[in-house]
Amino acid sequence: MTTISEYLFHRLHSLGVQHIFGVPGDYVLDLMDVLTQTPINLICNCNELNAGYAADAYARVKGLGAVCITYGVGGFSLVNAVVGAYAERVPLVVISGAPNSSVKKTNLLLHHTTGDYNLQLAIMEKITVAAVSLTIASQAANQIDQALAACLHYKRPVYIEIPQDLVHQPCNVPKNQLCSSLKLTTPETLPEALEEAVEEAVELLNKAQQPIILAGVEFHRFNLEKQLLQLLATTGYPVATTMLGKSCISEMHPQFIGNYVGALSRENVRQRIETADCVLCLGAIMSDMNLGIYTAHLNEYKLINANSEKVKIKHHFYQPVYLGDFIDGLINKLQKKDPQTLEFTPAADVIATSFTPQPENKLTNGRFYERMNHFLEDGCIVISDTGDAIISTMDLLMPEETDFIGQAFYLSIGYSIPACLGAAMADGDRRPIVFVGDGAFQMTAQELSTIIRHQLNPIIFLINNDGYTIERVIKDGPYNDIQPWKYHEIPQIFGESWSCEVSTEGELETALAQAKVNTECVSLIEIHLDRFDCSDGLMRLGEAMSNKG
Amino acid sequence: MTTISEYLFHRLHSLGVQHIFGVPGDYVLDLMDVLTQTPINLICNCNELNAGYAADAYARVKGLGAVCITYGVGGFSLVNAVVGAYAERVPLVVISGAPNSSVKKTNLLLHHTTGDYNLQLAIMEKITVAAVSLTIASQAANQIDQALAACLHYKRPVYIEIPQDLVHQPCNVPKNQLCSSLKLTTPETLPEALEEAVEEAVELLNKAQQPIILAGVEFHRFNLEKQLLQLLATTGYPVATTMLGKSCISEMHPQFIGNYVGALSRENVRQRIETADCVLCLGAIMSDMNLGIYTAHLNEYKLINANSEKVKIKHHFYQPVYLGDFIDGLINKLQKKDPQTLEFTPAADVIATSFTPQPENKLTNGRFYERMNHFLEDGCIVISDTGDAIISTMDLLMPEETDFIGQAFYLSIGYSIPACLGAAMADGDRRPIVFVGDGAFQMTAQELSTIIRHQLNPIIFLINNDGYTIERVIKDGPYNDIQPWKYHEIPQIFGESWSCEVSTEGELETALAQAKVNTECVSLIEIHLDRFDCSDGLMRLGEAMSNKG
Repeated sequence: MTTISEYLFHRLHSLGVQHIFGVPGDYVLDLMDVLTQTPINLICNCNELNAGYAADAYARVKGLGAVCITYGVGGFSLVNAVVGAYAERVPLVVISGAPNSSVKKTNLLLHHTTGDYNLQLAIMEKITVAAVSLTIASQAANQIDQALAACLHYKRPVYIEIPQDLVHQPCNVPKNQLCSSLKLTTPETLPEALEEAVEEAVELLNKAQQPIILAGVEFHRFNLEKQLLQLLATTGYPVATTMLGKSCISEMHPQFIGNYVGALSRENVRQRIETADCVLCLGAIMSDMNLGIYTAHLNEYKLINANSEKVKIKHHFYQPVYLGDFIDGLINKLQKKDPQTLEFTPAADVIATSFTPQPENKLTNGRFYERMNHFLEDGCIVISDTGDAIISTMDLLMPEETDFIGQAFYLSIGYSIPACLGAAMADGDRRPIVFVGDGAFQMTAQELSTIIRHQLNPIIFLINNDGYTIERVIKDGPYNDIQPWKYHEIPQIFGESWSCEVSTEGELETALAQAKVNTECVSLIEIHLDRFDCSDGLMRLGEAMSNKG
Repeated sequence: MTTISEYLFHRLHSLGVQHIFGVPGDYVLDLMDVLTQTPINLICNCNELNAGYAADAYARVKGLGAVCITYGVGGFSLVNAVVGAYAERVPLVVISGAPNSSVKKTNLLLHHTTGDYNLQLAIMEKITVAAVSLTIASQAANQIDQALAACLHYKRPVYIEIPQDLVHQPCNVPKNQLCSSLKLTTPETLPEALEEAVEEAVELLNKAQQPIILAGVEFHRFNLEKQLLQLLATTGYPVATTMLGKSCISEMHPQFIGNYVGALSRENVRQRIETADCVLCLGAIMSDMNLGIYTAHLNEYKLINANSEKVKIKHHFYQPVYLGDFIDGLINKLQKKDPQTLEFTPAADVIATSFTPQPENKLTNGRFYERMNHFLEDGCIVISDTGDAIISTMDLLMPEETDFIGQAFYLSIGYSIPACLGAAMADGDRRPIVFVGDGAFQMTAQELSTIIRHQLNPIIFLINNDGYTIERVIKDGPYNDIQPWKYHEIPQIFGESWSCEVSTEGELETALAQAKVNTECVSLIEIHLDRFDCSDGLMRLGEAMSNKG
């Protein structure tokens, strides 16, 4: 006999979830008790928002993540993480304990609530693609399966609320029900629409002299990376990625030219994209930041824009057409271009072949990230927080087998430290390398303790430039100042760790050498930079934003 | 000429708001620029949830509080603080920047959003008593006034969203409009209902031999403390307070017998309330925790229950009847009882008259709080976090002019450190004394840095009993363990401060002497207790909760 809670965790485990993040609380203790009896590891966080960010990053790496919290104070503390996952298409399962079903029928005012026992569900309905409160044991398995299928289909968060009295109730285990629900998990295609869309796109692309592909995050979310490689091989086209799509193709690929983020881009990338006679934009979320805050110049008459559910050419749509099917259609029909006419410079050729430290020189933002291009090794996970960290990282070349993780569209400041925990749990074989500013670090600093608690070994570069530099560039005022902490002393407060602070290129070299060999625990390197020392990209962004208000 | 943003801040200032809490972000920078030009101080927090908690505590002390945040990432991070304020009737004004109005009409995907520009307003509508997004400059003043009036009337949060393009637009300043809206801020009374309610209550109370008053938080929220004193003088009745209502009357008052929290109460308080032949319950939120998680035994046939808007006697209601009017009616009609027949022991008589430290003895929870009864001085603000801290504090006798602050109904863990910031800003003359457990501290630890940044001088007792003790009592498991930090070393990371750790009664004495004279900066004392050493009240609560599931 299987209970409802066992069924839920069994399903999640069979879908690849090996860790669930969360914070205990009395409405969820029974559920957590069951969880500790399953093969899934419960990773407890310092607070719920951090648990949500960790589960979000876990989902980005693993394809599915889950967070388990108590009712009311837990669920409401999680809202921003769920909205972020919704915005950036992250398949995140939110599991909430809840008071006994019988309470909903009374006027009892229970702690952690306002007395409205539909409020949490009502809010979660607005920020997820499926939100259910289990009420009848015989239907629970079906409700769980439908929610999980929606999560995998839309790559967006879902919400499952389990009242205390249902946790241990027996569950009708359906035969292969998840499998049949899971058939829904690939978006649909109308064959006639697909045929027309491919035909029109192929005509435009074959006619073009200098087509280019702009690839977005959906390659990663829908596991289409191999098809992208096939498309590149078939066509010979160059490819750039959006900010959120960074690392959906190896950046060492000879056809990869860089990240396109409007005016923030390297000049050669911007030029090549904006002067292309046809841009094949695939799987990108067309947000402001993802494309450089209003500074992208993509001519709509030269744009083929396909995402997970539809294809848009000029101003008409083909729908429903699944991205994967569209790409297959293109692979079958497109001709290979003569490399001579395509004119592009691989990104790997733009990076200087070597870096020579000037030991006495004070570190600058530019030199630090130049150095990073020679420090990153194959097979790591790069995580950047919102602020100049994520902008500076755009010009870092990701080595082979390296994922880039950042909230490049929704941009929650403070995401990176909890995300580092989630990513490290999701893939124990790849070392996370984190870039986080001082302001971002202050938001969620305590989650470093959970990283230390589990003896994870990320390298964290804490870039201390004395406040919210990204905002100073947009509009400076006293609100951009923050309290200066002794950041490099924090890890020792939390447990076994190694950390230091550096101000010169020589000190950085010593620190990098130590961090590289310190594989047993966290390494935190506090980088001191001048207050207004930031990336060229940020300067351009600041100009664009202060002009547009 | 006044602009919309100037008008809002002017109104808030005229209502007593001298500090606004918040976190900057690009959609709110223009608004913050205006704020820095007003007499109101902008206090920037490490993150938005903390800003919300700080503003909530500020409102509890001052009668009105405000928090100012950016759109999306800011507003959604604040949700739990707003729900807590809603549950506990705290007048909190949430001010959010927002994208330009023109954006709402486009399909642009802006950062910090999901592309749905009504989402934040739609969620705030569910958790506030008034939520407005300013859209037309000529109506803005009116919308602002109505929202503020609702906040003061219902003592619950309201939400005001200001798109960037409206910040500097000229505002039609209405003549006395706020004053006329503010007429709404006292709940209504139907005179006939009032007369009947008073008549019935007076008959029951005059007939009773051992009536007693149970007073709740609404005395504080609606400024009715003086009327309570009058009622006590007129009748001679003894009075107890609920958990959330603690300190709504001086605990040194000769008619005050203690806090009534069901089975958690001191035995003499529980007995006196539960055997009374008439309980006059005034201004209390009848929640589970406030009344001891299901363990309160209040006979409904002996209960007169009045709150801000209605009076309930047995099973019938008089409505609308404002609490203040009802109490006035009782003062006019009730007779004084003979003190001989009332039989009660003042709380001040229950506390041992002296405390003799045993320097070599290991500290225990019981002895620590006994000591605290002799450490607290007149005119402080006691703040307790959720967990055994708030339960243990119930038996602390509040000195004269001392407020008690805690989320005694909604119970968000981690509330106390940001609340300490808010309370200290709200009243510079009273020193905050904080009781916080290790688990609660980890949730919001970074806000200690803001307390240090502003050279505030609270005394923080960090009770380290190695995990979530309150949950261990309900149900223990590995999820109740937390990473052990070197808590007493944290303040030095953040800035100028004094801190230490103590394990024995002798060490505690030394620390208390130092903290008392250290009035220039924060004092943090880490108290080491055994893992299962907790209050008798918590043991009883744990039993009650694990029995009820």
